[in-house]
Amino acid sequence: MSHLSREACLALDEADPLRDRRDLFDLPEGIIYLDGNSLGVLPRAVSARLAQVVAEEWGRGLIRSWNTAGWIDLPVRVGSRIAPLIGAHADEVIACDSTSVNLFKLAAGALALRPDRKVIVTEPGNFPSDLYILQGLSDLRPDLEIRVVPRDLLVQALDDTVALLLLTQVHYKTGEVHDMAALTEGAHAVGALTLWDLSHSTGALPVDLTRAKVDLAVGCGYKYLNGGPGAPSFTYVARRHQEGFRSPLTGWMGHAQPFAFVDDYRPGAGMARLLCGTPQILGMAALEAALSAFDGVDMAVVRDKSIVLGNQFLSLVAERCGGDLVPACPADGRLRGSQICLRHPSGYAIMQALIARGVIGDFRAPDILRFGFTPLYTRHVDVWDAVEHLVQVMSSGAWRDPRFAAVAAVT
Amino acid sequence: MSHLSREACLALDEADPLRDRRDLFDLPEGIIYLDGNSLGVLPRAVSARLAQVVAEEWGRGLIRSWNTAGWIDLPVRVGSRIAPLIGAHADEVIACDSTSVNLFKLAAGALALRPDRKVIVTEPGNFPSDLYILQGLSDLRPDLEIRVVPRDLLVQALDDTVALLLLTQVHYKTGEVHDMAALTEGAHAVGALTLWDLSHSTGALPVDLTRAKVDLAVGCGYKYLNGGPGAPSFTYVARRHQEGFRSPLTGWMGHAQPFAFVDDYRPGAGMARLLCGTPQILGMAALEAALSAFDGVDMAVVRDKSIVLGNQFLSLVAERCGGDLVPACPADGRLRGSQICLRHPSGYAIMQALIARGVIGDFRAPDILRFGFTPLYTRHVDVWDAVEHLVQVMSSGAWRDPRFAAVAAVT
Repeated sequence: MSHLSREACLALDEADPLRDRRDLFDLPEGIIYLDGNSLGVLPRAVSARLAQVVAEEWGRGLIRSWNTAGWIDLPVRVGSRIAPLIGAHADEVIACDSTSVNLFKLAAGALALRPDRKVIVTEPGNFPSDLYILQGLSDLRPDLEIRVVPRDLLVQALDDTVALLLLTQVHYKTGEVHDMAALTEGAHAVGALTLWDLSHSTGALPVDLTRAKVDLAVGCGYKYLNGGPGAPSFTYVARRHQEGFRSPLTGWMGHAQPFAFVDDYRPGAGMARLLCGTPQILGMAALEAALSAFDGVDMAVVRDKSIVLGNQFLSLVAERCGGDLVPACPADGRLRGSQICLRHPSGYAIMQALIARGVIGDFRAPDILRFGFTPLYTRHVDVWDAVEHLVQVMSSGAWRDPRFAAVAAVT
Repeated sequence: MSHLSREACLALDEADPLRDRRDLFDLPEGIIYLDGNSLGVLPRAVSARLAQVVAEEWGRGLIRSWNTAGWIDLPVRVGSRIAPLIGAHADEVIACDSTSVNLFKLAAGALALRPDRKVIVTEPGNFPSDLYILQGLSDLRPDLEIRVVPRDLLVQALDDTVALLLLTQVHYKTGEVHDMAALTEGAHAVGALTLWDLSHSTGALPVDLTRAKVDLAVGCGYKYLNGGPGAPSFTYVARRHQEGFRSPLTGWMGHAQPFAFVDDYRPGAGMARLLCGTPQILGMAALEAALSAFDGVDMAVVRDKSIVLGNQFLSLVAERCGGDLVPACPADGRLRGSQICLRHPSGYAIMQALIARGVIGDFRAPDILRFGFTPLYTRHVDVWDAVEHLVQVMSSGAWRDPRFAAVAAVT
């Protein structure tokens, strides 16, 4: 294990091919932000664009802006910009609603594509919404069986009663990465479909839905895509399933002719049928502007840097923090998302003490400290400085201060 | 029928108790905007608030703003500000998602509250999403019968098989107002629930859900509430139904303890269970700021002015435009929402010619010109001037210009 110095980190930053990307973001002074996996930082392009949407497009253009400013095309346009980040064709992705709402559309739609099957397989500890949405769906479809299977038994749990395998590619808590292609192949071998939640992978690592032959996917706009708090989600349906796909959330914007105002629903062409209500234009415009930070970026370069940052963080913690902080993520960077997770019984208080020092990660119950690395703006020196703060918090016992003990509403 | 003069209109504006409200809005020069029933104009308070949310709360506060800026409470806070406009208690309203998504939650939730009943009654020509959402729900609930009944036969269609009566209070196309209290009483008489779509009534006329004993309601944030394009919707569940209410869209934000990250869904207290995914903060903050325009406003005064504006518009059209433009809305202002609808076989082209002159209304297929009056900013003189433009368009035949013939994507 090498002793990485702060100077070496600065030299790595100097040589970083993504170095200039950091200037695209409006980073607060005095903060080391390691929570882009929860809420990405503000891209500079967003402020100006949003001011324009409000003052000009809404303020001056008013209702006309649905046409003249292209609001009506925003869900398709944003989707087509996300597509290359996930190895999809432009016409396979559309942006709208929240990740949870889109999970519902896709899970219900998958059951409709496999009408003689009643089982959805997923794993315990999946992101809560992925599990909860299935539970809500089963209230409407009492014949639905939700088969919750630990990850090492997933393949064995697949049989010809299974309609859908629903998994999150990168685990929100531990950062573990599923082998998307192998699991999709396993599902297809029994005639099942796959639905991948890409919330913690899109923008953090290369995703290739086409190569992995994924059927359905959903992802988040406000994490590594930096679309802002509560940004629209995106949803993917492989071309081969689009014509037969039926969303249960048949709002007017998903109609073949929304402005014909007829009484009978007829699904729109392609991904348009995934739309439901009127799209949230402010959030959609912010997300579109945010995506410009990825223009010309090679996701393989992002991934390489992400792995290096994570490895450095783990090494420095092992060297300098003693044994109390136990890694809860894979040591092999290739098996890990763009986050490091450490376990400690007082993890909540330790994270609060770090945040008080300006090192912002987050905490996931019961005992996990999460540190996210967003290679477009996280530097090697940020890793070094964050661990230095962690060393000081641990060695000083600062986290035992009672003010760090209370659990806040959102952590 | 009196000959209303432009001077008389100016005098009425001078005496208007809502006169000062107009200053709260950022109205474009040279435009008479009669489409606030489709997209409300920009309230001045929104621009500054949104810039602050972006630069400070997102840019500086980052993830911490969920707590420190109160983002996590926005759905409840916005709901409680809408509540007095619809005669609801503050804890009966929450803002989230789109109107269409909320219609799905409420319709499915109503069926769960009446488990031994399988019929939902609605009317033909209801706003498309209201009808489409039921059709999508029936894909998941094949036992559901959607009984579509003309409005004069609605009461007769109610029997003890009916779980829910779903109607829009003010018809989007004709402006006709249902007797919400009487129809709700009729539904209750057979043990059915009511779900009222308030999209074209909230902020336009006094609504009293409590007095009318309404069970469930939904409404739009971007029409008379001026929350901006695709603003969050709001949803209402009467207190007496909240504890038993079960939304099928069981996303993590509706969980009793969203940040416990447990595997099993348990609905949050009260209206919190109506939440699904992460709320759209930009749109939510814009809507909250927009609602300040209603602070201290007496909705009875708004209603009185709305009726006067509509009556004046109808009278002037009858006097000055000849018989080609046929009213398609009730002549009695008390039976009409805050819009005037005129029928003409070339309605689309006529509206385009008006828009080209800066008079913005809209068109609804096949032949309806809609003119919405938003008493917080529409003046009597705007009515006079709009009709003057209409007189000129009709008498000159300007609308026959071929450039007004094509149907745009959104009209």
